[in-house]
Amino acid sequence: MDNNRIFIFDTTLRDGEQSPGASLNIYEKLEIAHQLAKLNVDVIEAGFPVSSPAQFDAVKRISDEVDVVIAGLARAKEIDVKAAYDALKSAKRFRIHTFSSTSDIHIMGKFADERYGRSLSEKQETIIKMSRDAVAYAKTFTDDVEFSAEDAGRTDLIYLSEVIEAAIEAGATTVNIPDTTGYTFPSEFGLKIAELKKRVKNIDKAIISVHCHNDLGLAVANSLSGIENGARQVECTINGVGERAGNASLEEIVMALKVRKDLINYYTNIKTEEIYNASKMVSSFTGIVVQPNKAIVGENAFAHESGIHQDGMLKNRQTYEIMTPESVGVPKTKIILGRHSGRHGLSSRLIELGYKVNEEELQKVYQSFLDLADKKKEIFDEDLRMLMGDQVHVKADELYELEYIQVNMGTNTIPTATIRIKSKDKFLQESATGDGSVDACFNAIERALNIKPELESYHVRSVTSGRQAMGEVIVRIRKNGNTFTGRGISTDVIEASTKAYIQALNNQHNFLKRQEEEARETISLSEISQAV
Amino acid sequence: MDNNRIFIFDTTLRDGEQSPGASLNIYEKLEIAHQLAKLNVDVIEAGFPVSSPAQFDAVKRISDEVDVVIAGLARAKEIDVKAAYDALKSAKRFRIHTFSSTSDIHIMGKFADERYGRSLSEKQETIIKMSRDAVAYAKTFTDDVEFSAEDAGRTDLIYLSEVIEAAIEAGATTVNIPDTTGYTFPSEFGLKIAELKKRVKNIDKAIISVHCHNDLGLAVANSLSGIENGARQVECTINGVGERAGNASLEEIVMALKVRKDLINYYTNIKTEEIYNASKMVSSFTGIVVQPNKAIVGENAFAHESGIHQDGMLKNRQTYEIMTPESVGVPKTKIILGRHSGRHGLSSRLIELGYKVNEEELQKVYQSFLDLADKKKEIFDEDLRMLMGDQVHVKADELYELEYIQVNMGTNTIPTATIRIKSKDKFLQESATGDGSVDACFNAIERALNIKPELESYHVRSVTSGRQAMGEVIVRIRKNGNTFTGRGISTDVIEASTKAYIQALNNQHNFLKRQEEEARETISLSEISQAV
Repeated sequence: MDNNRIFIFDTTLRDGEQSPGASLNIYEKLEIAHQLAKLNVDVIEAGFPVSSPAQFDAVKRISDEVDVVIAGLARAKEIDVKAAYDALKSAKRFRIHTFSSTSDIHIMGKFADERYGRSLSEKQETIIKMSRDAVAYAKTFTDDVEFSAEDAGRTDLIYLSEVIEAAIEAGATTVNIPDTTGYTFPSEFGLKIAELKKRVKNIDKAIISVHCHNDLGLAVANSLSGIENGARQVECTINGVGERAGNASLEEIVMALKVRKDLINYYTNIKTEEIYNASKMVSSFTGIVVQPNKAIVGENAFAHESGIHQDGMLKNRQTYEIMTPESVGVPKTKIILGRHSGRHGLSSRLIELGYKVNEEELQKVYQSFLDLADKKKEIFDEDLRMLMGDQVHVKADELYELEYIQVNMGTNTIPTATIRIKSKDKFLQESATGDGSVDACFNAIERALNIKPELESYHVRSVTSGRQAMGEVIVRIRKNGNTFTGRGISTDVIEASTKAYIQALNNQHNFLKRQEEEARETISLSEISQAV
Repeated sequence: MDNNRIFIFDTTLRDGEQSPGASLNIYEKLEIAHQLAKLNVDVIEAGFPVSSPAQFDAVKRISDEVDVVIAGLARAKEIDVKAAYDALKSAKRFRIHTFSSTSDIHIMGKFADERYGRSLSEKQETIIKMSRDAVAYAKTFTDDVEFSAEDAGRTDLIYLSEVIEAAIEAGATTVNIPDTTGYTFPSEFGLKIAELKKRVKNIDKAIISVHCHNDLGLAVANSLSGIENGARQVECTINGVGERAGNASLEEIVMALKVRKDLINYYTNIKTEEIYNASKMVSSFTGIVVQPNKAIVGENAFAHESGIHQDGMLKNRQTYEIMTPESVGVPKTKIILGRHSGRHGLSSRLIELGYKVNEEELQKVYQSFLDLADKKKEIFDEDLRMLMGDQVHVKADELYELEYIQVNMGTNTIPTATIRIKSKDKFLQESATGDGSVDACFNAIERALNIKPELESYHVRSVTSGRQAMGEVIVRIRKNGNTFTGRGISTDVIEASTKAYIQALNNQHNFLKRQEEEARETISLSEISQAV
């Protein structure tokens, strides 16, 4: 095996999806998975099959459709490993990824129960046994087994080495060292990897992987330090999405390695021109915005404003850029479509933007495209992304459908909205006032449906190309500690807001319905331990 | 001098302000400067005085009012250094910060003209002389002089050492080593600092400073590596704002040092509980959003969603957090104000949020507060921040003022808006349709004012606390390569959008007016070289 090759393990759909409010439906996950395949990642971690039927289903559908190594997460328990196998087995190539907690603080916290042992060292023994057994069991299903030592960043080296050695002995072909808290510094983390390489006798039988979190802004630096000290797989996410301050950004790691080959000679197989599409798709579907000053994929990543910079730019393009926009897939020229572009023009551009649509889906999108073309002459990439986002959502079962909306507002007018919603075969119609247009609409919806959710957040994104921008609104509502996201698009922000709110309510309804159906099947929260 | 002390040099108002669309007016800069003083930064770089009268004015006003070391930027030319002195001289303590380009690529690019020398080595000599002279001249005004070697990251060590040594010999007390392209890796950058410490004979007479950019996501790691190798000043910005992927984030560096004292024993004098207020103020005034997964100050930085994390949280708070929300100033409890809170309740809370208001300003804000309290019962911190943002803007000269707005939209209604604007003593009134409510308003404004700017972006932020959210809209328009930002707030997003658009037009008008007035005074772009 080429020793300069770095494997990219993308966990956008598993660890990334754990971001608050980021839950994706199956269609969104499939689109993202297909884009990750275009990006040419080495492994797609598609979910945590045992944790819920929706997770199981996502891993299974992605295994059915996407030709990349698909991984499923599993605690170190037979039930988890078996569930992962069942979800993954239709994949051409798959990996079972099992994990155990190894730090004192996690062990005492999560394995407090005496059945794991009375003292810390007894519990540590139990964990080694559990890890060994889980890996061995996974090996009966596949040769490709990964083992993670959760919270390795705070695990002492001796014990960590024992656990890793046991996992490799049982057959793990990849061993993953996460910095779960995002607490570690690059030199410290690199040293840990180097020490493991030295101490673990059978380390050459496995690939060392790293998985870093960004709580101190060091996720990428820690990952690179891991590579420099012997790691050959990096677990990361698009846009660095993930819990708290997120995971290491795939795009930052990949481009850092690419632009500084002169310094550290490692390479990935990533098709970097697909980075931009992947980034846009993930931020669009999750609703997690990418700030303008985000490395590689932020709006300003390639923009120069001050006269000073511009002056430098004019004289010599090398002056301030270290990578080109084209190399990460930022479109050089705006492609503008219109009514005249036809189905073929539309479908070509959709493919270029990373979407996979079959005939039936294309017909629906084309209809939405024509409706939009009636309103705005020029249709840009961002409009298409929004149409696709909307399309993907429409496939999910919708309890409530917006039939009619009407709003009046003004300086001397109390904002007043009238809403009509179709629910199964009934029509629910109401009017309400509010302190603003959107508030009036939301009040009318709540009056019509007789509900009162807690509004957690409301974001509007607008297509910035051209005068008649499409508005994309993301609404998050909260119920019993769960957050539901709804997205609406329209050339009118009031209509987009209303559609978004209704979709959030639909998602909430679907979740609760599923929860009732699955009450016996879902593993209780107290039994699910921390993923890496 | 205590060798573990790290000095924090904040350049939010200079380098940060160079972010596209981030231009701040004088009142916003003053508010931010006061907050930076509360944060207890060591130096505030307030601007680049020679570059325009607005920049000069900002540095002067901040020097008048804020009791922290105030720095002004200057190229290595007498005219710049003198301008910096003139702007800074009223400060209790001030620093003149002068710079020269040192990399081959910058030298050949910007000092192409033969008057700087014919060959690269001749030009290099010229630059040493210019740097020496500029520092010496600055020393006639103050003892506190900083010298930066622009693009040091790509400058060979020998020449860099010569330039630095010359600057220190001429009297520079701080020497700054930037990574202008954001291209460097931590070990490489740290090595450069260590080598300078060894080679530059008089290095002990100055403090070494670092200034890193985030193009590969390594700004913080590079800054920390600099510290570990001898740097004792870090230049950084709030939220990491700055051109392209931005600067090193002040909050990430400060908290990394604070939480890992066990590993690297350095400290700053930053009052970390002021971080949150500073972050909110900067993102609000610049309109540059902070993504949810931003370290330290992102919305999700302290949020846990998956059952797994929550389970860990319940058993032992130490499990996943490495710093507490309170330590960075995230409010533990929501403070809710209302009509009954009175002027005193309002002014107390404003002070707690980091704002400084005099009696006259308080009266105006209190009036807006009461107007808002009529519409929404509960007023949260976010509402107050928005009122303050609006307040600060109102102080600037406004050519256009929104007098009246009226909008109708609906499923079977063509969105139609009527707008009336007051301009000087005239009233301009028009109606227009659009493909949505906001588009109709913008069309009506453009018809009334007979203009057609290019809309660059449109963002809506909503207060998420409580049902009746305030909407904050940020509109950016573009004219002749310049971007102008406008912000509007209202409980109605249509009204907020309209106010924002008008404010952007006001800012554009003010800029163009100033440009005409200053045509003779402003240094031409071709002469202003790259700031660090």
